[in-house]
Order: sequence, then structure tokens, then C-alpha cells
Amino acid sequence: MSTPANDTFLRALRREPTDYTPIWLMRQAGRYLPEYNATRRRAGSFLALCKTPELACEVTLQPLERYPLDAAILFSDILTVPDAMGLGLYFAEGEGPKFERPVRDEAAVRQLAVPDPSVELRYVTDAVRTIRGALGGRVPLIGFSGSPWTLACYMVEGGGSDDFREIKTMLYRRPDLLSRMLEVNAEAVAAYLNAQIEAGAQALMIFDSWGGALADAAYQRFSLEPMRRVIGALRRPHDEPVIVFTKGGGLWLDDIAGIGCDAVGVDWTVNLGRARALVGSRCALQGNLDPMVLMAGAEAVRTEAIRVLDDFGPPQAGAGHVFNLGHGISQFTPPDNVAVLVETVHAYSRQLRRRDASASSL
Amino acid sequence: MSTPANDTFLRALRREPTDYTPIWLMRQAGRYLPEYNATRRRAGSFLALCKTPELACEVTLQPLERYPLDAAILFSDILTVPDAMGLGLYFAEGEGPKFERPVRDEAAVRQLAVPDPSVELRYVTDAVRTIRGALGGRVPLIGFSGSPWTLACYMVEGGGSDDFREIKTMLYRRPDLLSRMLEVNAEAVAAYLNAQIEAGAQALMIFDSWGGALADAAYQRFSLEPMRRVIGALRRPHDEPVIVFTKGGGLWLDDIAGIGCDAVGVDWTVNLGRARALVGSRCALQGNLDPMVLMAGAEAVRTEAIRVLDDFGPPQAGAGHVFNLGHGISQFTPPDNVAVLVETVHAYSRQLRRRDASASSL
Repeated sequence: MSTPANDTFLRALRREPTDYTPIWLMRQAGRYLPEYNATRRRAGSFLALCKTPELACEVTLQPLERYPLDAAILFSDILTVPDAMGLGLYFAEGEGPKFERPVRDEAAVRQLAVPDPSVELRYVTDAVRTIRGALGGRVPLIGFSGSPWTLACYMVEGGGSDDFREIKTMLYRRPDLLSRMLEVNAEAVAAYLNAQIEAGAQALMIFDSWGGALADAAYQRFSLEPMRRVIGALRRPHDEPVIVFTKGGGLWLDDIAGIGCDAVGVDWTVNLGRARALVGSRCALQGNLDPMVLMAGAEAVRTEAIRVLDDFGPPQAGAGHVFNLGHGISQFTPPDNVAVLVETVHAYSRQLRRRDASASSL
Repeated sequence: MSTPANDTFLRALRREPTDYTPIWLMRQAGRYLPEYNATRRRAGSFLALCKTPELACEVTLQPLERYPLDAAILFSDILTVPDAMGLGLYFAEGEGPKFERPVRDEAAVRQLAVPDPSVELRYVTDAVRTIRGALGGRVPLIGFSGSPWTLACYMVEGGGSDDFREIKTMLYRRPDLLSRMLEVNAEAVAAYLNAQIEAGAQALMIFDSWGGALADAAYQRFSLEPMRRVIGALRRPHDEPVIVFTKGGGLWLDDIAGIGCDAVGVDWTVNLGRARALVGSRCALQGNLDPMVLMAGAEAVRTEAIRVLDDFGPPQAGAGHVFNLGHGISQFTPPDNVAVLVETVHAYSRQLRRRDASASSL
């Protein structure tokens, strides 16, 4: 693997010294950007955008043209894997993702099979290759997948859910069935991520968007353990780092840091300083600005970005921080505020390092 | 105050010895009960049900007729206070609560005034008196209010919200304005709860349903501190205990235990044993079964109820546990499963005490 011109993101994930704190934003290629909306209109639909490598590449690069971000992330949907399993992903207007054939009973679970990423998910690996070429080594490219549990939520509920009634009924009534499904999902996610690495992904993120809906104990069994199996099954020729993000998982950071990942993503309910004290010597941390700060104007963005950097504390060898939001950027974000955020994180974190250097030379 | 015939709930909140673990359920008077739906139909609307003391009394008592619950909770809406402020509460069919006049700007905040509970909220104190009479001292009656922050969320958003965009924009852009609003709310909530105590409420619960949406630091400032002010302003002639429940507040239990409450409510993401180690010598704990367990049948209900009791650990002097769900009971709950839950909690917790007693006599 050739080292990207800007490898700050990868160095931070490996807890190596960096000149400043790197930043990227979850859903950085998205609806808050007019150029994204233009490409999406050209594609005809969100799914067509995901499934056309050239267009996925185009939107992946758009935020990098605007802002000096330190990583690109593959533009794709979180539900490509169950779609490849044949569940029939579609998007009802204004309603979010749905499946035509949700997995509700034993027969449906037994029928689940691991898709071949080189066939059913070829459009994703093609997109990874296209994006790597277009990036020309500027910044690293992040590949990603939903976690086995999060995929299972959509597969069983048939779409988004407020209460996870269907899958939790399965969890409490037929834990064996859910476990079987999570085994298939874990194998499918590992194969999918391995294919992304082979195609050129230089870091990986596992989005466990719904792990925080689980009860303590159920989380460890049904979300964490399948993610551990995924990470254990990855072939990472260049030690491609893995970030695990359980939204609402602040109570389980210690557990998450123990499943073999390189970094733990945290949402804004977590105090970064406390998280660092708990897991910072084992894993880097990624996060955790409240995305709604970006609604409030330049002054608020500066104040709150500095607060996040101060919460993490002084940069030191052995600790790594990747700045991010605590959740995906909102479609209502004024793009100018993102520029202020990136500039503030870069400038203030450089300042912290100078302060640190002059303090140690005293 | 006359002691109720069954004062197990009050004793547990005060961390005094009890013969078994008391149980009540958030939203125990609700749509999962056919008799509730019948009364609601008679009332004509949800708001009419809340505002007619005789009908509010009727539905408050319904779950006690079915199950040997250890407390009754006033049937009312969480948004009575902002409604009394003149914001125009209404319920759009299938959409949840809305306000006709949300509080969006400085002028609207300046106009907010503390309602007089003996006038604008008279229907609530009348309901408390009616229910106390009808209960005839069987079990204690819990009064309640939304937290100042949670009320503010509805007041600013004008209804429910996924991202709390309006109020968080105010929070990050005009924290002074939000603070002013929270001062009014805290004063209004304290007056409201004091009126409920005067009318006969024997314990109080503050529902901070949306505290968990806040970033660390913002939670302490905008949700916790106003609740501390509320508790400080309560007149509690018989030391009526106060329960504070921040949904999604598992990371802040230590902070919550320090604001003068008697018990901390926890949702199912929290490990009760760890919570007890953290705050159990200062506060009782209330919770924390995942409400979706009640969907899965009698066997799952027994297993998971016992798990919650085991997680809390052995009953001992100085520690108190009130069994509850980690959130309101779902409208889809089969009523028979609730009977299994109440029976299991009572029987198994008696068994734990016998085991404990025989162990100490060895």
C-alpha cells in the first residue's frame, strides 16, 4: 500500500504522533451539499447513486474539494449486504430504507446465505477502486459496513423502527434464531470488508447504529460478540485500522475496546477525557461533536470544537484522536459552518501541540 | 400523612428493609389495557381524559384492579405545564403532542410566565385528590412532571423531534435565552409538584425523557441543574421521596445522585449492579427491564425479570430497588405478560430475602 500524501488520519488511529488532529465527518458526502443533490438528481435515485461506481466516486470526492478533510469515506448505503442477500431493499419516498422481504421466521432465517462480494456486491468494490484512483493518494479511503446486529435490525423490522419490537421479540423468545442470523451476518460483513480492503480501502469502520437500543448483557451477546467475530476474520495486509462505533454505547466503551478494534467511535453524550482515561491506552477515539452545533453559526462551532479538543486533552504519544461528529451530519447543515469546523480543529490542535512542546522544553 | 396499607414502595425508595421488591410500571395505565381504551373512548379524547378528574382517577386505578402493583401513578400528560402556560397543546391524530404556539424567539421566551397550579392546573390537583380518596390507602400515589429541559424540548420544537434541531440551535447560539426559559420551567415544575404534594401525592417522579439527547456538559448545565433547582424548591412535609429519571442518562448516574433526589431511574442499557455500586449508598434505584421483554411471552418475562433482580444483587439494609421498566410500557403489550412479571418480581424477590436470611443465620 502506498502511504497517502496526508496520512494524519491513519497515524492518529495507530496512536502515533501527528502534527494536528485529523478530521472527517460521518455522512460528509451528503444532502447538505448542493453538488451532492445535483449528482443524486442525475443518478435518478439514491440506490442508483450507490450502485454506479463513477457517481459514487463523484460524491465521495465532493466534500474533499470544499474542505481540507483528512479522510474520504466510500459513498454507499449501510444496507448493501442484506440487499445482496436478496431481501429487496427499496426507499419509499421520505420514509427511509425498507425491505420487501423482511426476515421474520425460522424458515426465512434458515434461507439466509452469505453473498459473494465479488458478484452481488461488485458495484461496491468497483466504487472503492474507482475512488482510490481518483483520490490519487491525497488522503486515505475508509471502507465500511453496518454491524451484524444493526443489519439484523433492518432485516427483521423490514425498515427503521422506534421500539425494535420484532427483533427484540425474536431476541427474547428465540435467541437461538437471532444468533444464527447474526452468524450469517458476521460472516457476510467480514467477507464484504475483506473485499473492500482488497479493492483498496485503507481503514474500515463498523457502524453499529442500533447497538444502543439493546439492554446491557444483550448488547455484549448480540452486538459486541458478532463484531468481535467480524474483526477476527479480517485479512489486513497493511494492518488497516478498524473503527467500531456503537451509537449510544457510551456505557460499554471498555467492552468495545477489547474486541480487537483500533479505534472506538463515541457520540456526544460521552466525555472524551473520561473515555480516554478508560480506553485511550488501548484504542484511539473518534468523535464526538453534537452535529447540531453546526446549525448554530461560526462562533458556536469554534467554541464547541475547542471544547471537544480540550476534553480529549493534551496530545501525547500513545493516545490518538480523530475528530468527528457524534453522528452523521444533518442535511440541514449550512456548508460554511463545516469550513469553520475543519479550520478550527486543524488550527487549534496545532496550537495545542506547540503549547505542549514549549511546556516540555521548559 | 397516613401510611398506606402497602408502603413497600415508599420504604424501598427510602432504602429501608422490605419484604420483597416493589414494582410499578411507567405508563401502567395505558393503551395496552382494553378497559383504558374504553374509558378513553368515553372521554372523547386523550386531553379530555387528562382534564376530567373522575376519568383520570378511573384509569389510574385500572391496572391496580388487574395486578398487585405497589404504587399508583397519577394519570396525566407530561405537557400539562406548557399547556397551562398558554402554548396550546393539541394531539394531531397518530402524531403525538403538538403546540400551536411554539417558543422560538426572544419575545416568546420573555412572555413565558409561571402558571398558578391552583388555577390553570386545578384539574390535576383535583385528580390527585380524587385518586387519593378512591385508593383508600391501599398503595401510595406518585405525582409527576416532565423535567424543565424535557418540557423546553416540546415547547421549542413544537412537538416531538428526532434531532432537536430548534432547541439545540437555541442552546448553542443563545444559551442565555434557553437558561431563561429553563428558569421559568423549573419554577413552574416546582410549583406544580408542590401543588400535587399538597393535594396528596406521596412520592414524586421527574421524567427527563430527553436529557439523553444532550451532549456531556450540556446535560449537566441544561437538564441536571434545573432539576436540582426544582428539588431544592419542593416542600415535602412527610419527606415525600423524589425519583429522577433521565432516559439515556446512564453515563451521568453519579451526577444525578447528587441533586437531592431519593431515587434514580435507569433504562435497560444500565447494568443495575454497577449502578448500585456507583450510587446505591446514596440513592435507591428504579428500573430497568426492557419493555420489549413483555412481547416475548411468559418464559422470557420470568427469565429477564430474574436477571434484573439478580443484577441488582442481594437485598441489604441501606440499598433500595423499585422494579420498573426502563421506559413506558408499550401499547402492544399482552396484558397477561404483565401479570407474570408482577408475580415473578414479588415471588423471586421474597425468595432472595429468605436465601439472604438463611445465609446470615449460618
